[in-house]
Amino acid sequence: MRGLHLTADLYRCRCEASWLTDAQRLGQWSRQAAEAVGLAVERELSYACATGGATTTLLLPGSHVLLHTWPQERAAMVDVCLSDAHDELAARAHGLMDAMVQRLQPEWTEQRSLDRGDGE
Amino acid sequence: MRGLHLTADLYRCRCEASWLTDAQRLGQWSRQAAEAVGLAVERELSYACATGGATTTLLLPGSHVLLHTWPQERAAMVDVCLSDAHDELAARAHGLMDAMVQRLQPEWTEQRSLDRGDGE
Repeated sequence: MRGLHLTADLYRCRCEASWLTDAQRLGQWSRQAAEAVGLAVERELSYACATGGATTTLLLPGSHVLLHTWPQERAAMVDVCLSDAHDELAARAHGLMDAMVQRLQPEWTEQRSLDRGDGE
Repeated sequence: MRGLHLTADLYRCRCEASWLTDAQRLGQWSRQAAEAVGLAVERELSYACATGGATTTLLLPGSHVLLHTWPQERAAMVDVCLSDAHDELAARAHGLMDAMVQRLQPEWTEQRSLDRGDGE
């Protein structure tokens, strides 16, 4: 078990408003963005939360991509957590995170990178 | 947008082996553990990955709980990321993480706590 977990908090997103509310559109786009960096998605779950935001989840072997939005604040949280089940782990994780940030066009972001696992 | 994101990497889990392979059992148990700390789960998705591990996902407003297992290594990764849509944020997040770690009985863990959002 070894993985790379990238997190990003996105503020003042300048994208078209529907990208922060339309869960199906976000999910479809996210799946395509994952496939574009060579990731094979096993499961997807996208839905509009009771509080008005959208959530998109992509699941891959030992790995996940999560996107939550706060439309009223034009804000979002993104997690890209990939395990060593995937080749070229770091390149794919950073490539997908970059695509997701560019899609939502935040004025600024706070991003972190965590090494997961490999403690054995 | 403000949240608390707890991560845990679990090694040498001493639980009964089926807790690391039976995704439906893990999912059902995780949902009950979330409800036990007062969290209302909106969506759940649990499945057996192509690589043999199990993944359980719980989705809540602006929040998620993720569990991936590596049965051959008796290892697991857990994420509990709760946003301020939930009252008593820290107590619920730590309570749920503690329950999940106790369920899988690792010999040791590596745990981190990240503040998410609130950068506006």
